Formats: sequence, structure tokens, C-alpha cells
Amino acid sequence: MKVTPLYDRVLLKRVEAKEEVRGGIIIPDSAKEKPLEAEIVAVGPGKRADNGEVVALNVKVGDKVLVGKYAGTEIKLNDVEHIIMREDEILAVIEA
Amino acid sequence: MKVTPLYDRVLLKRVEAKEEVRGGIIIPDSAKEKPLEAEIVAVGPGKRADNGEVVALNVKVGDKVLVGKYAGTEIKLNDVEHIIMREDEILAVIEA
Amino acid sequence: MKVTPLYDRVLLKRVEAKEEVRGGIIIPDSAKEKPLEAEIVAVGPGKRADNGEVVALNVKVGDKVLVGKYAGTEIKLNDVEHIIMREDEILAVIEA
Amino acid sequence: MKVTPLYDRVLLKRVEAKEEVRGGIIIPDSAKEKPLEAEIVAVGPGKRADNGEVVALNVKVGDKVLVGKYAGTEIKLNDVEHIIMREDEILAVIEA
Amino acid sequence: MKVTPLYDRVLLKRVEAKEEVRGGIIIPDSAKEKPLEAEIVAVGPGKRADNGEVVALNVKVGDKVLVGKYAGTEIKLNDVEHIIMREDEILAVIEA
Amino acid sequence: MKVTPLYDRVLLKRVEAKEEVRGGIIIPDSAKEKPLEAEIVAVGPGKRADNGEVVALNVKVGDKVLVGKYAGTEIKLNDVEHIIMREDEILAVIEA
Amino acid sequence: MKVTPLYDRVLLKRVEAKEEVRGGIIIPDSAKEKPLEAEIVAVGPGKRADNGEVVALNVKVGDKVLVGKYAGTEIKLNDVEHIIMREDEILAVIEA
Repeated sequence: MKVTPLYDRVLLKRVEAKEEVRGGIIIPDSAKEKPLEAEIVAVGPGKRADNGEVVALNVKVGDKVLVGKYAGTEIKLNDVEHIIMREDEILAVIEA
Repeated sequence: MKVTPLYDRVLLKRVEAKEEVRGGIIIPDSAKEKPLEAEIVAVGPGKRADNGEVVALNVKVGDKVLVGKYAGTEIKLNDVEHIIMREDEILAVIEA
Repeated sequence: MKVTPLYDRVLLKRVEAKEEVRGGIIIPDSAKEKPLEAEIVAVGPGKRADNGEVVALNVKVGDKVLVGKYAGTEIKLNDVEHIIMREDEILAVIEA
Repeated sequence: MKVTPLYDRVLLKRVEAKEEVRGGIIIPDSAKEKPLEAEIVAVGPGKRADNGEVVALNVKVGDKVLVGKYAGTEIKLNDVEHIIMREDEILAVIEA
Repeated sequence: MKVTPLYDRVLLKRVEAKEEVRGGIIIPDSAKEKPLEAEIVAVGPGKRADNGEVVALNVKVGDKVLVGKYAGTEIKLNDVEHIIMREDEILAVIEA
Repeated sequence: MKVTPLYDRVLLKRVEAKEEVRGGIIIPDSAKEKPLEAEIVAVGPGKRADNGEVVALNVKVGDKVLVGKYAGTEIKLNDVEHIIMREDEILAVIEA
Repeated sequence: MKVTPLYDRVLLKRVEAKEEVRGGIIIPDSAKEKPLEAEIVAVGPGKRADNGEVVALNVKVGDKVLVGKYAGTEIKLNDVEHIIMREDEILAVIEA
């Protein structure tokens, strides 16, 4: 299933936080804070400006980004949690 | 009864979630989460831009889309649940 | 009494829902859901755009439309319940 | 005392509802619903558009109009209750 | 102390309501409704429009106006209560 | 430490209210109302208009102004209480 | 890990408040007020204006700025607390 966001929306996949080990005890998933790092999986064609032109997005597929913990709408695609949000809600791009 | 949405609104029909079977027990409808997938049944002519021009929509009849669980207004047409919402509330288009 | 809505407002009359009969028992009016279908009785001249021009409405007198259950302002004209709302609040036009 | 509303405001006087008689009992004023009909007493010169031009109002002195029950600001002029509101808050013009 | 309002603000002084006498009893000040009539004491140079031009105000010093009971910010100047508000909050000009 | 406000912000210092004496009793600071008078200490370069131009502020360093009691953000600079606010929040300029 | 804010966002690092000593007792970190001073670590390319042009930011990397106590989104980068906010939320630039 291929998903193409509309307008200035992007589809993201949170980057899995490695399972933390504290004092030899593996902390199960539900006790960990949701990660703020995400990877862009698909981007929309861009927002339509007031003059009718479509303004392409700044981020591209594969970009690693920082997003707010509660930004966007969560959806499950092929059993994997994804988020759809407007590009403007992305805080920053991470360059490795 | 044919329904034509006004301006940038679209008429959608949720795609039926197949009845789930868990451990041989059929989970009845009310216990299932409402599906996020929908099909576009009718589209409006488009939004009127500031310069007076009508800007056609990006989605078309037959498109499968992802929509928020609580987006739009639910209406019953010919005994089938439909939703009317603005195109901008659609999150993404699904390509099979 | 003739009523002409101002700007982009329209005057509507809800289409009477036929009295429902379930298992031979007539369900009295107060127990029925308010109908979502309405007919346009009068339309305003249109909204004034930013450039000063008046943009005529898309709907016309006699159109059957779908409206939200709580949209607009209810007023009684000649003892009949009417609703006044902005055209943009109309969800869709019904073509028979 | 002559009152000239500023910009796109209008001065209105509610049209007195005749005292209702039900079964021979006169219902005192406080038990009646406030009327929705009003007459325009004075109009402002119009709103200043973005390009600086003043756009004259659509309603004129003497027009009978329909207004929302709680629209505008009530003021007492020469011991008569009046309402000042923006023209856009008027719902419709009544033609006799 | 001379006070010049900024942009589209005006400085007003409420017009004193004469002490009311009902049945020979003078009603003390706190029991009276705050008057809605005010006189303009100073005006700002005007609002800066989108194109950079300053648009002069419609009211001028000495004008008697009607203002909402709770509009603007109250300040005491030379021991007299004044109000500072935007011109657009003034409801109407009173011509004697 | 020199502080330069960004865009259309200004840095202000409240003008000290002289300690009030009522009936020979000095009223301590906490019982006095916060003064509304302030002096401009630094101004930003101005707001960027829609056409990209920077529009300089109307107030300048040294101006005495009237400000709302709760306007702006309070900050302590060199142990003195200051306020940073947008120029548009200033009510009026005081000319001595 | 290098982080580049999007559009008109900036990445900031609060300037450490020196540990306060009162009467010989070191006050631990949690009892101190969060500092209002911050240093700019990275800046976005700028906001896209209505005409499509990107308007560069006024602040640059290394600038010391004043920010509101609760402005922006806090994120931990390389174990150091950072804040991402829009440039317009910065109150002022500090010049040493």
C-alpha cells in the first residue's frame, strides 16, 4: 500500500528507540518515552500559495527530522505506526 | 439521490473493515475501531481563490484516501453512512 | 412577507421528514432526529470580495441541499420554521 | 440627539411585538420572546476596504431587517431601546 | 501632562451622568450605571495600512461618542478617569 | 549588558511611583498599584511588512509612554525590572 | 548529530545559570528559576513570504538572546537540553 500525503503534509515513521537497559533490567516499551526522531516516508506535492502556485516542500523522503511528541495524526500502515503531519510542524532536520 | 458537495468539499464512504477474527471468535462491529480508510464518492467544483478563480480539487471520484477518525460531518445517504468534509482535511491518497 | 438575505446568506426551509412508522407504531415528532435536508427559499446577492466585486452564490432558489443539524439561525416566518445561514455552511446540493 | 454609527455599523430599533393575548389573558412583556424584527434608524458611512476605499452599506434608513436575538450592543436613546451592530450581523432584509 | 495615543487609538473622557433623583432621594454614584457617552480628548495619527500609508481617524478631538460599557483601558490622568481604546471600538458619533 | 529588542518590540522601564503617604503612614510597595507609566529604553528595528520592507517604530528611546498593567513580558536586567512588549501594545505617548 | 531548524525556527541552548549560594548553602538545580538567557546554536533558512521569497532571519548562530520562560519546544540533543522556537518568539538580542 503506497500512501501519498495531500498538499503540504508528510508521512513519517518514528525512529525506533533502542530498548533501554537500566541495571540489567530491560524496560518494556510502554514505559519508555515516545521518541522525537522520525524519518520521512512520503511527502505531499506542496501547499498551494495565494497566487495559485504549488510551493514544493523543503524536506524529502529519507530525511531524518525532529518532531513534537504530540504532533500530527497517528495511523497504522502495514502494521507499522506512522504519523501524518503538515511540514510546518516539523521542528528541524537532523544531518548525521 | 445524487449529492454534489459545494466548493472544496468532498463526499466520502468509509471502506468497510473486514470482520476481524481473533482466536476463532468474530468480534462484532461495535467493538471495532472505526476505519480510517475511505473512498471518494463525489467532489465539489473547488474553492474560490482570492482572485475569484475556482481552484479544482486534487482528489477525484474513486480515490481511496486516509481521513481522521473524527473529521467531517456524517450523513446517511440511501441508508449508507457517508462523510462530507473539506478536501484539506484528507490526510493522504492511497495508491494500491 | 418577503425576506432577502444579506451578502452570502441564504434562507432555507427544512424538508419535512415523513412520519416514520416502526412496527405499526407512529413515532411522534419530538422523538425523530431533525432532518438534514432543506430547500433554498431565498439567496443573498453574494459576498463582497477583497477587490470590491460581489461574487454571486452557487446555489439558487429551489435547490435541495444538505445542511448540518445545528447550522445557521432559526427564525419563524409566516408560522413556518426557517433557517438563515451563510452559503459556505451548506454541505452539498442534492440532485433528484 | 442624532447618532451616526461609525464605519460599517448601523443603529436599529426593534419593531414592537404586539401584546399577545392567549385565551383572554394578556401576557406581560417580560414573558414574551424578544422580537427579531428591527428597523434601521441610522447607518455608518461604510467599512474601509484594504485599498483604502470606503465601501457603502447595503441597507438604508427605514429598512426592516431580521437580526439575531443577541446581536449587537443595546443602548437607550431618548428613552427608547436601540441596538448598534455591524451590518454583516444583519441576517436579512424584509420586504413588505 | 499631554497624552498622545498611538496609531488608531483615541483618548476619551466619559461624560458625567447628572446625579439622578428618584422620589426625592439622590441615588449615590455607585448605584448608577456607568454612562455610555464620552468625549474625545486626543486621537492617534491613524493605523498603518498594508501598503504602509497611515490612514487618519474619522473622529476628532471634541467629538461626543457612544462607547461600550466595558470597552478600552481605563487610566487616571490628572486625577480624572479616562479611557484609551481603538477607534473601531467606538459605536457611534453623537451630533447635538 | 545591552539589550536590543527584535522586530517591533520595545524594552521599557516602569517609571517609579513615588512612595505614597496617607495620613502620615507610608504605604509599603506591595500595597501600591503597579504604575502604568514607563520609559522606553530600547527599540527594535521595526516589523517586516508584507512587501518585505522593515517599517520603523513610532516611539523612540527616552519616550515616556502609558502601558497596560499586565502588558508584555517582565525581565530583570542589571537587577532592574524591565518589560519587553510589542510597540502596538503601548497605549499612548506622554508629552511633558 | 547536526540539527538544522526548518523555515523561521531557531535552535537555542539556555545559558547556564551559575549555581547560587545563599548563606553558604548551595541551592540545588531544581530549586532555581529557569534562566531566560539563551545562545543560538542553529538557525533555519527563513520564512517563506507571501510572494514566495524566503526571508532570512535576523539572528545568527552565536547570538545571545532573551527568551520567554515557557517559549518553544524543549529537546535533548547529545544529552544537553535545547529549545526550538520560531524567531519571532525571541524577545531581544543581548550585546555584551
